[in-house]
Amino acid sequence: MAVKVVIIGGGSSYTPEIIEGLIDRQATFPVREIVLVDIEEGREKLEIVGRLAQRMIEKANAEITLSWTLNRRAALVGADFVSTQIRVGGLKARALDERIPLKHGFIGQETNGAGGLFKAFRTIPVLIDLANEVAEICPDAWLVNFTNPAGIVTEAVLKHSSHKKVIGVCNIPFNMRNSVAEILETPVERVAIEFIGLNHFVFGRHVWVDGVDRTSDVLASLNAGNDYSPANIVGLGWSESFLSSLGMLPNPYHQYYFQTKDVLKKDLEAYAQNGTRAEVVQQVEAQLFEKYKDVDLAVKPEELEKRGGAYYSDAACNLMDSIHNDRGDIQTVNTLNHGTIRDLPDDAVIEVNAVITKSGPRPISIGALPLPIRGLITNLKTFEQLAIQAAVSGTYEDAYLACLMNPLIQDEKRIDPLLKELFTAHEAYLPQFKKEVYS
Amino acid sequence: MAVKVVIIGGGSSYTPEIIEGLIDRQATFPVREIVLVDIEEGREKLEIVGRLAQRMIEKANAEITLSWTLNRRAALVGADFVSTQIRVGGLKARALDERIPLKHGFIGQETNGAGGLFKAFRTIPVLIDLANEVAEICPDAWLVNFTNPAGIVTEAVLKHSSHKKVIGVCNIPFNMRNSVAEILETPVERVAIEFIGLNHFVFGRHVWVDGVDRTSDVLASLNAGNDYSPANIVGLGWSESFLSSLGMLPNPYHQYYFQTKDVLKKDLEAYAQNGTRAEVVQQVEAQLFEKYKDVDLAVKPEELEKRGGAYYSDAACNLMDSIHNDRGDIQTVNTLNHGTIRDLPDDAVIEVNAVITKSGPRPISIGALPLPIRGLITNLKTFEQLAIQAAVSGTYEDAYLACLMNPLIQDEKRIDPLLKELFTAHEAYLPQFKKEVYS
Amino acid sequence: MAVKVVIIGGGSSYTPEIIEGLIDRQATFPVREIVLVDIEEGREKLEIVGRLAQRMIEKANAEITLSWTLNRRAALVGADFVSTQIRVGGLKARALDERIPLKHGFIGQETNGAGGLFKAFRTIPVLIDLANEVAEICPDAWLVNFTNPAGIVTEAVLKHSSHKKVIGVCNIPFNMRNSVAEILETPVERVAIEFIGLNHFVFGRHVWVDGVDRTSDVLASLNAGNDYSPANIVGLGWSESFLSSLGMLPNPYHQYYFQTKDVLKKDLEAYAQNGTRAEVVQQVEAQLFEKYKDVDLAVKPEELEKRGGAYYSDAACNLMDSIHNDRGDIQTVNTLNHGTIRDLPDDAVIEVNAVITKSGPRPISIGALPLPIRGLITNLKTFEQLAIQAAVSGTYEDAYLACLMNPLIQDEKRIDPLLKELFTAHEAYLPQFKKEVYS
Amino acid sequence: MAVKVVIIGGGSSYTPEIIEGLIDRQATFPVREIVLVDIEEGREKLEIVGRLAQRMIEKANAEITLSWTLNRRAALVGADFVSTQIRVGGLKARALDERIPLKHGFIGQETNGAGGLFKAFRTIPVLIDLANEVAEICPDAWLVNFTNPAGIVTEAVLKHSSHKKVIGVCNIPFNMRNSVAEILETPVERVAIEFIGLNHFVFGRHVWVDGVDRTSDVLASLNAGNDYSPANIVGLGWSESFLSSLGMLPNPYHQYYFQTKDVLKKDLEAYAQNGTRAEVVQQVEAQLFEKYKDVDLAVKPEELEKRGGAYYSDAACNLMDSIHNDRGDIQTVNTLNHGTIRDLPDDAVIEVNAVITKSGPRPISIGALPLPIRGLITNLKTFEQLAIQAAVSGTYEDAYLACLMNPLIQDEKRIDPLLKELFTAHEAYLPQFKKEVYS
Repeated sequence: MAVKVVIIGGGSSYTPEIIEGLIDRQATFPVREIVLVDIEEGREKLEIVGRLAQRMIEKANAEITLSWTLNRRAALVGADFVSTQIRVGGLKARALDERIPLKHGFIGQETNGAGGLFKAFRTIPVLIDLANEVAEICPDAWLVNFTNPAGIVTEAVLKHSSHKKVIGVCNIPFNMRNSVAEILETPVERVAIEFIGLNHFVFGRHVWVDGVDRTSDVLASLNAGNDYSPANIVGLGWSESFLSSLGMLPNPYHQYYFQTKDVLKKDLEAYAQNGTRAEVVQQVEAQLFEKYKDVDLAVKPEELEKRGGAYYSDAACNLMDSIHNDRGDIQTVNTLNHGTIRDLPDDAVIEVNAVITKSGPRPISIGALPLPIRGLITNLKTFEQLAIQAAVSGTYEDAYLACLMNPLIQDEKRIDPLLKELFTAHEAYLPQFKKEVYS
Repeated sequence: MAVKVVIIGGGSSYTPEIIEGLIDRQATFPVREIVLVDIEEGREKLEIVGRLAQRMIEKANAEITLSWTLNRRAALVGADFVSTQIRVGGLKARALDERIPLKHGFIGQETNGAGGLFKAFRTIPVLIDLANEVAEICPDAWLVNFTNPAGIVTEAVLKHSSHKKVIGVCNIPFNMRNSVAEILETPVERVAIEFIGLNHFVFGRHVWVDGVDRTSDVLASLNAGNDYSPANIVGLGWSESFLSSLGMLPNPYHQYYFQTKDVLKKDLEAYAQNGTRAEVVQQVEAQLFEKYKDVDLAVKPEELEKRGGAYYSDAACNLMDSIHNDRGDIQTVNTLNHGTIRDLPDDAVIEVNAVITKSGPRPISIGALPLPIRGLITNLKTFEQLAIQAAVSGTYEDAYLACLMNPLIQDEKRIDPLLKELFTAHEAYLPQFKKEVYS
Repeated sequence: MAVKVVIIGGGSSYTPEIIEGLIDRQATFPVREIVLVDIEEGREKLEIVGRLAQRMIEKANAEITLSWTLNRRAALVGADFVSTQIRVGGLKARALDERIPLKHGFIGQETNGAGGLFKAFRTIPVLIDLANEVAEICPDAWLVNFTNPAGIVTEAVLKHSSHKKVIGVCNIPFNMRNSVAEILETPVERVAIEFIGLNHFVFGRHVWVDGVDRTSDVLASLNAGNDYSPANIVGLGWSESFLSSLGMLPNPYHQYYFQTKDVLKKDLEAYAQNGTRAEVVQQVEAQLFEKYKDVDLAVKPEELEKRGGAYYSDAACNLMDSIHNDRGDIQTVNTLNHGTIRDLPDDAVIEVNAVITKSGPRPISIGALPLPIRGLITNLKTFEQLAIQAAVSGTYEDAYLACLMNPLIQDEKRIDPLLKELFTAHEAYLPQFKKEVYS
Repeated sequence: MAVKVVIIGGGSSYTPEIIEGLIDRQATFPVREIVLVDIEEGREKLEIVGRLAQRMIEKANAEITLSWTLNRRAALVGADFVSTQIRVGGLKARALDERIPLKHGFIGQETNGAGGLFKAFRTIPVLIDLANEVAEICPDAWLVNFTNPAGIVTEAVLKHSSHKKVIGVCNIPFNMRNSVAEILETPVERVAIEFIGLNHFVFGRHVWVDGVDRTSDVLASLNAGNDYSPANIVGLGWSESFLSSLGMLPNPYHQYYFQTKDVLKKDLEAYAQNGTRAEVVQQVEAQLFEKYKDVDLAVKPEELEKRGGAYYSDAACNLMDSIHNDRGDIQTVNTLNHGTIRDLPDDAVIEVNAVITKSGPRPISIGALPLPIRGLITNLKTFEQLAIQAAVSGTYEDAYLACLMNPLIQDEKRIDPLLKELFTAHEAYLPQFKKEVYS
């Protein structure tokens, strides 16, 4: 009954959050062992985070054995859950994903457009390797993937690794539900939202409170200026026509698609002033790690909440808890479609409400997508599948097609220079793309 | 918050069961008014059952106002739930459904084959009328349909009436779960079964206890002779090859399809000895109503459990309770497919696990049917849709096609005489089929 | 056996082409009666074109009775084919469709983007009326629709009129095949192209000559600068990466989607220099009609070929000929999907190769769309279906959604001003949109 | 341009037919080399047939080099077409397929029910081997499969071999079209039939003559006693209700499904009188081979037409001719579904009208199956896919499931004894089923 959790990318600044989450759930979710794993480049951060986590556990008097290591294979032995929160190439790579597209006149964002595409290219091979290792060493473990672009990465792992117990999680639906509860001044437990779509492209079709439809109240409130954008996205607000015609809740990332020009302008201005978001985050991280070093600190510091990924660990801990306890509650996860959304292929990963059981998530059927969003969601999924194909094949043609069919790029004559600069910049992390492919 | 339940076919011998169920749930499901409705031919039974129900309520000290009436429209005013348990033509018509096919060399059964087809022909127009009345008088009410063939009838009502809040319920999945719990010696709350298919043609793909798969244990037990057939079906047992090849739980009605010859032989023998099942039930009913008249009786009599439809009311009460309270638990219902099972049309009614909410059931996605049962389930659904088409069109060609595509009939040269005898026998209840159509 | 053809919009400058086509096919396609129909505003043009057509027929010694009239109902009596080539609002309306979007920073084009949307809004109600009249007066006649946006209009008529014998035709596939034949220096009869997609958004997946795949030769030639853009579209050429990654033939209209920025720039420049394309065409038309008045002219004048719609009438005449003669040859038409392309709804109109028979086109199965174009084609079809919905419902919300989901618009905050200006400008031709909707 | 045809099973009594067909088409289909291939057991027949074929070629003065051999690999070198007409286990095995099921109370037929299943089990591994050899030795060759059950075998080869240029052909649609032409007293070239379904389970949805629908005339004629059953099936006629309700042309094999009892009775009587059909055929064959030995015989003998497979070779020769010449005509073939019939999987082989081109058949889209036949066709295809799965996996469970889901067997308790006897009888030809599996 004792549970072992292995955290890949354990040196991340987010780790205190998940540690806190696991400590808080000790009564019902009996985690007895946690191993933080990282790579050589992250050794120092891992050490800092490990010590802080140790102090947190001790202060909470929790019965958890903690360790940290660079030896992933050893760490995986006997794991029940493996959670991933890695960033291949670190914040430096993210800065390139943000800067280079901007320079070519495109949105530069870490999970959307060309930036998201290259993050996928760097991340997918690493996570496929991990998943194969999990399948070999701890085949009964669930791999809980937070690594962005979470939907694409989860699908790639399910398609191209031998491990099938893989679930992707994102904090966006989690946060939207919390924000909606605040807007409606209702305890969050009484709020249900029907989520439809793809990671970072999900819509809320219905909001219910105790089973009563309150969607229009939420839309009215959004229109009146309420917002639920996370720290890393500056919301521009939505027009009344948009909200009333759509009749569904957009998510903060939709601004990239429905306000492209304005977002590009805003991002160019922000870049001129502060550099990329990655650079801002680098400073935040540096300050956080200074905090973490403080041997008197034994709780998650407040500053972490401003970091942008709030509630990530809550989403993760809830999921692991429900799986372990076969709770049968409904959570929003990234999982295989298998007919849940008629318009998408069986092997596509979607973001969807699912009943969470010990044997995995069972998505609630959606059927045909509502007409207004059918095209764009299919379009985005096509891009995602082309991206996965390119990440695995390593051919220029596939990479080109992925750009061509991404609504934020799509400009056939501007793709070559964009791709070439990105390939060159990220060369060290893209072994699957031979250099002659793009030079 | 006070709930009003209207029971159509309130003079049924089953009524004490649902009354007991509603009394037992008073703490959480606040039913404050119950109206039993029946037609002129059932006036006497309605009176007897009404008085018994009144005594039950009084004895239980329940805060429920009960009444009984032949005025359906008046009864429906203000209803929250309308439940149906009618039998058009009564047990006499059932006896014909059982006897006539047997005479022609076919299975004679009240919900399968030619018998089930004619029960559908008699019932569908009546329930469409009721549903249109519900839509007019109490449009927010849920229509909970128990009337058999429950899947076909529910689909017909959803297709051809203006009321859309309609759910079909059957006790078979409910009973299977109970029997499986007994077999596994586990509290039923810990047992989950994934049901796939159509009413009376449903399979249990997986059995879990606390999320752990126990399907093979249940199959082994069935093979060793355990059975979960209801009182109205004599089980013949399943061969080891059948159970191990299929790897899923059959339901008791599957004997008609996979043991046709043996069941026909058994039924012919039973008929020679005791007449039809309808005639046996007529005697049971007569005795029950004698019991019901006893003014000292103020509880559901034990004999009712032998009647065959055990747990029907539990299934119904659980469903109404969960809808009213937006419970979000999982129950097995008959509801629109809308893509839940890929292989069936959107407007087909399927029997499926669903999350039960105030705004209706949300089926858990199934995707593609498992190959072994794909053909037969599609075949049965085709029959069902032809049956509905015929029930509404009133043409001989559609009735013929429904027989031709029913696996229990299908014999092109023997359909004409079979149909003609059935049409003639049921003439009084089939106004939609003009007499010249079949004579 | 004698055939009667009615041409709606008979006063169009294109009419001499179709007259020539019908004359040329007299030997095999026995058209014996042609009626040109137009509306009051087109009376003068109709007269001019009618007289020219009469001279053409006389010169050719063809056994065809010609007449022209404003009485559409009378003209339809006994028709075998009704062909449509109308322009609701005339070139003036087109000029607005081209100018207004440009002003708001969007592509302004008569069949794509906001311009195409409003052309659809103006045209759909008129063609639904016509189709209903055809269904009433000459129900066996085929309605052959050339009116743009041909795919959207054809789908709207099939969905919302009572006439089902409707086929849409476009000259783009016809011209592409001719151009490919030239590129490959082969007689066009030996060239086959597999067309996949939607009107003005069709791709050529394969090119065969005598059954041998020559796709890559054609792509190489396109890359080397060969082009097959019609007179009304200035081609910008395609990059090598685009052609080799896609591996399919684009059509000229694809520039709007894959070269949006460059096309917008080019169109703004052209507009600054010459005004809209509509204005250029107005001049061409004025000159043409001067020609047409010449009583010595008794053949189609050469200038017409420069007009932009070359081969339109060849496409139309071939289609009518094959239907009449049950030829069973393969032509590219706009017809109901009915499963031909898996990813699109049954009631969507697609542009596809079909076997042409007396009882209509029988599309050749395509199955799943190739991954690279799956998203965009689904997206475009979603836009088309929203456009039809708006054209019929007359609600602002539907019009807004159509814009929101059109890849050339999609900018949520810029849709309101764009829509309001377009609605106001076209008010006279949009009775279905109440004025209060947009003001 | 010279074409080489290799005939696998060249020692078959049918061979003179295909030789005649190839000779007759010399003008347009330039076959210059034919190799007849057989196995050791068929050496004598191969010799006899080879000599006859040689005399036929000489008499016709055809420019064809003929040879015959037991060396299949050598024969395949340079082949353009490989046609198969083998019978694994010979007529002796067929006799078992016919006799054993009868004994167990089931239809005994060489391509349907348990007999067809075991023919598939014997044939599939042999044809997969052949197809892999073709892929290796003559990868551009088309494999034209006549071997029954042709639909199942073709699908198995397409799924489980590395060769993809495989087409199945059956003479049933060919013969139905000929018979319909006779019934309608029209040249066959003017008759078109829309075929829908599976090999030996195909329906004719429409009959057109010159594009005019004549379906009802053909149905009326069938009802009046006209028949188009081949020599190997004794037709029992169809009832008026059957024909008018269905509204489509049945094929002769449908009697097994819609007249099961009567056919079983008829077949039992025929068996009592003459033994199995295989035994009758053995005698016919013996006489045929006596004829073939006659050195004065240099044409196809008339007696061959009575053999049952008339027009087989016409169907084959037409197909090869159209492929070679890229004719683009419409023929009925067994080919991959790929969305042609919505209700069946992409990788299912269907029997369908297709445009025949040099690069293969392009099926004409069907979309959703008509409701009346949707269930049975899906059911049959499910059986076929279970049969293929069993033929390849060699497990008892799969074989059992195939029987369970075959409408002619389906009796769960009678499958074990049936299977055991059939496995034992065919042991020598079923290496994929280990003996311990069924004993």
